[in-house]
Amino acid sequence: MDRERKAPDVVVRRLPLYLRALKVLDHNELPIISSEQLAQMVGTSAGQVRKDLSYFGVFGKQGVGYQTAALRDEFRRILKLDHEIRVGLIGVGNLGAALVRYHQKSPVHRPLQIAALFDSDPKKIGRKFAEVEVFSMEQLPEKITEFQIKLMILAFPATNVQEVVDLCVAKGVKSFLNFVPAPIRIPAGVKLHTSDVTMELQSLAYYT
Amino acid sequence: MDRERKAPDVVVRRLPLYLRALKVLDHNELPIISSEQLAQMVGTSAGQVRKDLSYFGVFGKQGVGYQTAALRDEFRRILKLDHEIRVGLIGVGNLGAALVRYHQKSPVHRPLQIAALFDSDPKKIGRKFAEVEVFSMEQLPEKITEFQIKLMILAFPATNVQEVVDLCVAKGVKSFLNFVPAPIRIPAGVKLHTSDVTMELQSLAYYT
Repeated sequence: MDRERKAPDVVVRRLPLYLRALKVLDHNELPIISSEQLAQMVGTSAGQVRKDLSYFGVFGKQGVGYQTAALRDEFRRILKLDHEIRVGLIGVGNLGAALVRYHQKSPVHRPLQIAALFDSDPKKIGRKFAEVEVFSMEQLPEKITEFQIKLMILAFPATNVQEVVDLCVAKGVKSFLNFVPAPIRIPAGVKLHTSDVTMELQSLAYYT
Repeated sequence: MDRERKAPDVVVRRLPLYLRALKVLDHNELPIISSEQLAQMVGTSAGQVRKDLSYFGVFGKQGVGYQTAALRDEFRRILKLDHEIRVGLIGVGNLGAALVRYHQKSPVHRPLQIAALFDSDPKKIGRKFAEVEVFSMEQLPEKITEFQIKLMILAFPATNVQEVVDLCVAKGVKSFLNFVPAPIRIPAGVKLHTSDVTMELQSLAYYT
């Protein structure tokens, strides 16, 4: 377990790619997969596949490869997708609503359950988006505890973000997917990925 | 120019962070900035800042630093944000509509102009989202040429994505921001960033 924790973020970000590749394979047709085959499916090298897997104590058989179904289950276990993880989302505006609908429609969403939505707009409270209820910001602490939310999506305008994040962390949220274009501080042991469309477009401008 | 092209993607992705940091600074209050100060603002090291800048032939004065305003302009130039870049978006569903509205409201969007939207739904064609008109998929080739679109956002369901991308490339699109969860092949000299919320959540599950 301690050993797993040492995997760099860039490796962790590749794990869902491996998992997706292994899920689309027919395990009866292809019971064994080589690191070369897996590498080709995710657009990396065989050496990188072997190195990435070694972080988690997973090693293929020399000259043979990995058992396809077992490797898929191993990735699920490493990513903790072998059990349900409760997700919350704050800010049910255009983007937030699109994210909920998109995620709940996705066939791979199941272990990641969006359990509760939060918004400060009284008109939205009590409404449902893709069958998930919207609660008030005042209910945030109690609902995080009630639903055991471990992962929070931040999709609200950039006011008092830090205060909201601090509150979530205090109530046990372990990771954040952030769409708020503002600097956010998080303590050690908590993870935050920021997704910023404007910045994505700015870096793509370089290649035009 | 050839020299700039050698910068790895990971460096190019950091450039908007530097630019954002330099834009919020008061250049009269802080006419010179050290690599240490800039590093702290974007959450990296001074050595990384100097190395990143060296890819573009930008060097600070030993023991002094960089001229703040000049460095900001330099980043704008490197990212090609010193002139207007026309952006298109295909697929005005929940996510696509949210992206247009979010981007057009963003104060930093100006050089990146979403010039045209495309959708296959006849009910959407001719409508406007955030003042940008929706055209049919049949009009895609002519409109890419007419608006000189260099950057395309892909936000439509995963049918015939490859065909659409090939068409865009043939008409001169140089980079793609992709929200379609499907493998896409692009030729050398064209850039594609994929943003996949489900995969982001899956990798964040690791940290819960």
